[in-house]
Amino acid sequence: MLTFMKFTVFPVKTPNFAFQLGHSKFSENQYQQQVNIYMAANQNKPSIPKGTRDFTPMEMAKRNYIFDTIRSVYALYGFRQIETPAMENLSTLMGKYGEEGDKLLFRILNSGDFMHKVPLEELSAMSPQKLAGMICEKGLRYDLTVPFARFVVQHREELQMPFRRYQIQPVWRADRPQKGRYREFYQCDADVVGSNSLLNEVELMQIVDTVFARLGIRVSIRINNRKILTGIAEIIGAADKITDITVAIDKLDKIGLENVNSELASSGLSATAIETLQPIIQLSGTNDSKLSIMRDVLAKSETGLKGIEECAFVLKSLENLHLTNEVQLDLTLARGLNYYTGCIFEVRALDVQIGSITGGGRYDNLTGIFGMPGLSGVGISFGADRIYDVLNQLDLYPRETASSSRLLFINFGEQEVSHCLQLASQIRQAGISVEIYPDSVKMKKQMSYASSSGIPFVALVGENEIATGQLSLKNMSTGEQRSVTVEEAISIISQ
Amino acid sequence: MLTFMKFTVFPVKTPNFAFQLGHSKFSENQYQQQVNIYMAANQNKPSIPKGTRDFTPMEMAKRNYIFDTIRSVYALYGFRQIETPAMENLSTLMGKYGEEGDKLLFRILNSGDFMHKVPLEELSAMSPQKLAGMICEKGLRYDLTVPFARFVVQHREELQMPFRRYQIQPVWRADRPQKGRYREFYQCDADVVGSNSLLNEVELMQIVDTVFARLGIRVSIRINNRKILTGIAEIIGAADKITDITVAIDKLDKIGLENVNSELASSGLSATAIETLQPIIQLSGTNDSKLSIMRDVLAKSETGLKGIEECAFVLKSLENLHLTNEVQLDLTLARGLNYYTGCIFEVRALDVQIGSITGGGRYDNLTGIFGMPGLSGVGISFGADRIYDVLNQLDLYPRETASSSRLLFINFGEQEVSHCLQLASQIRQAGISVEIYPDSVKMKKQMSYASSSGIPFVALVGENEIATGQLSLKNMSTGEQRSVTVEEAISIISQ
Repeated sequence: MLTFMKFTVFPVKTPNFAFQLGHSKFSENQYQQQVNIYMAANQNKPSIPKGTRDFTPMEMAKRNYIFDTIRSVYALYGFRQIETPAMENLSTLMGKYGEEGDKLLFRILNSGDFMHKVPLEELSAMSPQKLAGMICEKGLRYDLTVPFARFVVQHREELQMPFRRYQIQPVWRADRPQKGRYREFYQCDADVVGSNSLLNEVELMQIVDTVFARLGIRVSIRINNRKILTGIAEIIGAADKITDITVAIDKLDKIGLENVNSELASSGLSATAIETLQPIIQLSGTNDSKLSIMRDVLAKSETGLKGIEECAFVLKSLENLHLTNEVQLDLTLARGLNYYTGCIFEVRALDVQIGSITGGGRYDNLTGIFGMPGLSGVGISFGADRIYDVLNQLDLYPRETASSSRLLFINFGEQEVSHCLQLASQIRQAGISVEIYPDSVKMKKQMSYASSSGIPFVALVGENEIATGQLSLKNMSTGEQRSVTVEEAISIISQ
Repeated sequence: MLTFMKFTVFPVKTPNFAFQLGHSKFSENQYQQQVNIYMAANQNKPSIPKGTRDFTPMEMAKRNYIFDTIRSVYALYGFRQIETPAMENLSTLMGKYGEEGDKLLFRILNSGDFMHKVPLEELSAMSPQKLAGMICEKGLRYDLTVPFARFVVQHREELQMPFRRYQIQPVWRADRPQKGRYREFYQCDADVVGSNSLLNEVELMQIVDTVFARLGIRVSIRINNRKILTGIAEIIGAADKITDITVAIDKLDKIGLENVNSELASSGLSATAIETLQPIIQLSGTNDSKLSIMRDVLAKSETGLKGIEECAFVLKSLENLHLTNEVQLDLTLARGLNYYTGCIFEVRALDVQIGSITGGGRYDNLTGIFGMPGLSGVGISFGADRIYDVLNQLDLYPRETASSSRLLFINFGEQEVSHCLQLASQIRQAGISVEIYPDSVKMKKQMSYASSSGIPFVALVGENEIATGQLSLKNMSTGEQRSVTVEEAISIISQ
């Protein structure tokens, strides 16, 4: 029986396949056993958990294109990146996403003898939730906002307010996977906390506009204000019906005016109230004319008027900035009513039907639940996965996104390769990605590697080239082949 | 009681603090209850699981500097990025890291009624491991190598061989946290699979050299070959003692020759064998002289000579490429003996005592355990966390790493800000990061924000400036203030 050495924990390279890595002893037999167990369990096909994804180089290149675009625009506006751990204490996560949300949290089983605190005699009467609470202390983050709130409170003494942070990390939800809904997906959030100024709203809309302009996606940006919705509820004397009203209004596109009205009636609104709501539900025209109608309708609601003026300020400021995309006041927009307290926004692609691809708003109590009340914030979140789908559908990725090497040296054997290594080094110093085909196999195989990897140039360096110090450079798309110096090659490839 | 609306699953912005997000109903009372529960559990101090870390903007900037450096060099050599899910099926992970490794896996509790398959009457006699196996199907990835092996097998039909991939993602281990050892940390791996060529080894060493040259860290790169170690075991007639021998040789630096010899004796090696080992243990001089001595010592071992020739090829090729850092043949290097089958390498910083900061090697059976035998690979792994510590200790981060905005507009009030918004847009179009202080608070507070955020320039735009179309630009380090046009400002800030 072979025995194995201890391994240093980090950063040892750990390709653990042949046998295993470190810590303990392991025999060849045991290894074969593991292979058999694995094969039996997987019927020869390795797989990943449902709702999760691998990203191949091509997919990564496209995703990075989206992330880099968002990241660079965030940076342009002074937002700075943070990261938080994948695992949070369940006490941080529980109760923040509602009862259903709690069920969608992925919980991490405690290490070691995780059952030692569980009274076995009570087990048969215990709910899965209660038992889970006793054997799991940690969970995977469900969004970036609760961890951000926890971060702000935990680091409040180091942070300079107003604090502008962005965060691009995966989140996990034990939702039923379906088309476009994954159990692991990325969120790309930016938030400003510690400032009440509407300037933040203006700049966030500029960011949204710039990102989609750079991606080439035509969008409609819709804004509304939670205070307007509160005002509406006030003037019809149904402050407790605000959710019912906005939910009904939100359905206008889908079910039509008549059904909205009957839904309002069945939620207990009086005929007078529904009558009062009509100009609001059917509001149309320019932002200015909408605002002016709403000023009249909401004349008696202080909160409502405040909401109008907030929207007016943001819309006016944006008008002067000549955005690429249109920003519309849309009173049917009622997202996240439960936590947003001021402006709310949502973005939809004009050329693809896919729902909201970005959203956000102002909230007045981000950190209250962690014991730090009174901190206002406003933020946006880009839906990277949906943006990915939109770019795919519209075929809007720039060509270079493939991000393969620009040049492949054909391998003619040891002698030639030794020379190629030096040429390759020289060309890489010019910032050009270069590969040398590692094995000296048939030329045809090497050429087909270049072509199916999307490498645009191939260099052939044989005896003649070594003698002259040149290289034969073949353009894979035109088929043209020329003898050039290294400097010429660099300039041709860089074009 | 307030009720709340459903939320669209993604990409809704989810700042869930005031109350909660979606799916279910939730009252203000329930919210207060949650606050109380949270406060009681956390005694007013939110925290993160031990062994995990938050990264502040300054830390992120430094980490990104490391990741970007590694990424850009990987790309220069034609490596392409992939990502795999954080969660893998436990059948993929189990048995790959030894018994101890299995215990260090973070397991994800199954959703819903996770106990439904567990026979309660057998519970008291059940080991935690067995129970864990029944209530958890998924685990967090422990390294990047097993997921990569699984990826290669799963996607074999889409992949072009030889396949050069890199992967930079966090991994999780339920290890006891200690200084420099975390439960969540990043690995930065590059591997080539599907090629036996030593050219891959050469290029990986070039990559290592380039990365550390770019980072400004002086390193010693040590290489060895598993076949040499096998050869040594052969010639002393103790093939089954190979692990004991390399473990003992590896300790030479720490415990000295005498202790190494007595350790070899106590592991059962004969006096003759230990005698034969002496020239090897005490090997010194140039790589060429070491190789030449070893050729003699291993003259009778075919495998050993093969190892020598492999090292000779790699060292010779690297010599011609004039690396920045020295590459040394080091027979005491015995890392990962259990799975490496050819060249092995390890990198240490010369100016900081911190152990290995990069390592890797060749392995001949990466994918065998997933049913795809005979695929050779070679790879390296940069230890980002240790490199981070080294750069900190040597203070080697470039100044710009702070990555804050370059310019802050002072906020003098609504009128002025409306003008500043347009100037800021113009300046951002030149690629310069700009902030406008969002609130019109005391100038002193705004200036102190700029200074403590490390923003190098401040723009003051009042009535006069609006009238002349200029701006007063203040250099925060010299204190100098000048009236300039927007174009002049851009050129000054860009310098």
